[in-house]
This record gives sequence, C-alpha cells and structure tokens, in this order.
Amino acid sequence: MKATVLIRPKQGILDPQGEAVGEALRTLGFAVSGARVGRLVDIEIDTEDAAEAQAALDRMSRELLANPLIESFTIGLEEGA
Amino acid sequence: MKATVLIRPKQGILDPQGEAVGEALRTLGFAVSGARVGRLVDIEIDTEDAAEAQAALDRMSRELLANPLIESFTIGLEEGA
Repeated sequence: MKATVLIRPKQGILDPQGEAVGEALRTLGFAVSGARVGRLVDIEIDTEDAAEAQAALDRMSRELLANPLIESFTIGLEEGA
Repeated sequence: MKATVLIRPKQGILDPQGEAVGEALRTLGFAVSGARVGRLVDIEIDTEDAAEAQAALDRMSRELLANPLIESFTIGLEEGA
C-alpha cells in the first residue's frame, strides 16, 4: 500500500526557509503574502490493511519522519494502491 | 487563496535521502519496501481567481520551487480558503 506523509512546521514556529521562498517569489513579481516549507515522504508499506498501515505510519511519523515538538504531520493512504 | 505545491524526485532519479529513510524505517522494524523524500510549499497567494492562481503557481513551480529536470510537482488549491 502506498502512503504519503506531509510534514509541516507548526503554527508559530519560525520557518526561515519559507520566509526566504516568500521573499524570492515576491522579488520575481508574484503576489504572495506567505509561504511555508515542509517535507513529504512517499512510503510503500508492506500491508493491505488500512488500519494497520495507518497505525504504523503514525508511529513512523512520530519516531523518525517528523519532530512532533515543532512539526505537524498528516498521513494520506492510497487505498487500493 | 491558499495552495500547496508538492515536489517529488522524478521516477528514475536517485533519491539518497529516501533510501536512507527507508533503511532507517526497516532498522526500526517497519515493513517498508520503499521511501522517497520530497518537499512541500504552502503558499498564500493574493487572488481569489482559481485559474489565475493555478497559472501563477505553475510558473512559480517551474521558475523557483522545483527543478523540472529532476523533480515533478503537483499543485493543490484550497478553493474558498
């Protein structure tokens, strides 16, 4: 089963990379009032059980993929994939 | 209007970061057969016109956010946001 984990800096956490991207976009002439930069991880997980996959991905995100102190994450499962 | 751009290494492009993440997840005991790491950018764009936003985001992605030679991108608009 395929899944995608989206990892974002939490609200209120400084995001210098996002500020740099926003500034660069404005310099290029785009009307952008804010930008935040995060990561994504596409994972091929060896189970077809959605509940099991969801639980494993939640643990992976907490233990390795994200830093729960400063980042939030959302898990998307590609059912049937 | 809010939008999210997802940027991924193209198929066939080496992704050492993804390989390291997959290896780390397997070391932690997760049954994972592959992982690929990309970026995401949340953008607040100053228009309420979806077509205009889409066109601007497409240009932003090509010119700054992604490297079209080795990365693909997908644009998601949060309509009404």
